[in-house]
Amino acid sequence: MTSIKPLVTLVGAGPGDPDLITLKGIKAIQIADVILYDALVNDEILDFAKPGCTKIYVGKRAERLSTSQDHINQLLVDYALTHGHVVRLKGGDPFVFGRGGEELDYVRQFGIETAVVPGISSSVGLTGLQQIPLTYRGISESFWVITGSTSDGRISDDLKHAVQTDATVVVLMGFSKLKEIAALYQANGKGDLPIALIQNGSLPNEKIVLGRIDSIIQKAEESLIGVPAIIVLGEVVAKHQAFELLKPALHSLAV
Amino acid sequence: MTSIKPLVTLVGAGPGDPDLITLKGIKAIQIADVILYDALVNDEILDFAKPGCTKIYVGKRAERLSTSQDHINQLLVDYALTHGHVVRLKGGDPFVFGRGGEELDYVRQFGIETAVVPGISSSVGLTGLQQIPLTYRGISESFWVITGSTSDGRISDDLKHAVQTDATVVVLMGFSKLKEIAALYQANGKGDLPIALIQNGSLPNEKIVLGRIDSIIQKAEESLIGVPAIIVLGEVVAKHQAFELLKPALHSLAV
Repeated sequence: MTSIKPLVTLVGAGPGDPDLITLKGIKAIQIADVILYDALVNDEILDFAKPGCTKIYVGKRAERLSTSQDHINQLLVDYALTHGHVVRLKGGDPFVFGRGGEELDYVRQFGIETAVVPGISSSVGLTGLQQIPLTYRGISESFWVITGSTSDGRISDDLKHAVQTDATVVVLMGFSKLKEIAALYQANGKGDLPIALIQNGSLPNEKIVLGRIDSIIQKAEESLIGVPAIIVLGEVVAKHQAFELLKPALHSLAV
Repeated sequence: MTSIKPLVTLVGAGPGDPDLITLKGIKAIQIADVILYDALVNDEILDFAKPGCTKIYVGKRAERLSTSQDHINQLLVDYALTHGHVVRLKGGDPFVFGRGGEELDYVRQFGIETAVVPGISSSVGLTGLQQIPLTYRGISESFWVITGSTSDGRISDDLKHAVQTDATVVVLMGFSKLKEIAALYQANGKGDLPIALIQNGSLPNEKIVLGRIDSIIQKAEESLIGVPAIIVLGEVVAKHQAFELLKPALHSLAV
């Protein structure tokens, strides 16, 4: 009988395209005894698992009742203690709104070792694939990644600070708050600021809508863009290759 | 004679560990005719190149005169037009202070096609490997990545905004400004805020110093930590597994 060494490794699977996982992530998956994976994780990545690996879907988009965070925490502990190496495979990066920190806190209470393999956050990766530079000399010397869905449902106070700066702002999980966010920017005199919406980024059905704050709501409705989508706000959005087409026209474009 | 299709692909190599490049990045390298690479790129990654690929070092840390950005821009164009597919391999992510946007602007003037493969930014990756969560429910609902070396040498105005928020702040290329940054946080009543310095992150000689704003200068000096290093500021730093050891002691620790 071999002894079990409990270990939980959080692995970032990247923003969707299975080729956007790291080599280190693949190596962790290859030696995993159990994989707990989210809805946003591409199935192709699971093919790297060894034969006999137990793969468990714990995503929150299933038709059935969603798997609660408490339940996931308990599964991590139970499987680590009974099976050994559990890989917790999460979309994007485990620590960018992934509740990875909470999972680590929980499993450590049981004396279980933990490790983390970072992933490409959609904030960095989806803007990059669209060739929108997050930073650019003379335009933006920082970028700020903010959640659109705070635990109590309000718009984040950080957005109210962000609108007063020149930072490139990326809002994740905030598409349902787009009107509120646009209104905030307008109230701060930034109706002309370039903005991009990227839906299903890095996947074959990727869609982007480019515009300015003042026109983005109308463009979003016309283009039928929807979740999952990220919002990118800042002058750097005008660096997108399709953006210049907007200049003589209506300040907005669905690509 | 085969026709040449000029193409420049910016590829993010990740923060140091060669296993932190993505599969998509490796695939781009495998088909590159020419690779222009930086000092921060791990040599092992170059081994994925096909036989006959021209590999050119354009890093800025050589003993010799540094390769200027203008020169790099020109090399990208010249090699794309004469050789075809040029991969511009950059440390971290190409758009996180990598001047990738400027390179794309330049080569597009010549009608050359461009593409981008995102990489793990040290801001996300090195905090992740140290198991410091950038975001955490109830503690931080955003993270802000700011350059420490603005084009005119001053401290970024964004830092002056950032100190007034609860955002986790990551400063890249800012180690030489550590005293100035600590003074800024002290002046804003945040002398007790947890802070981490991570040098050579993801590499075998990685070093981390944990502390609070008030003690970090002394700890940095005692530990002989130096560049290249990132600075992480925020309550989430207290989630580092070694941080709790500080609580009964002097509020700082070199690991």
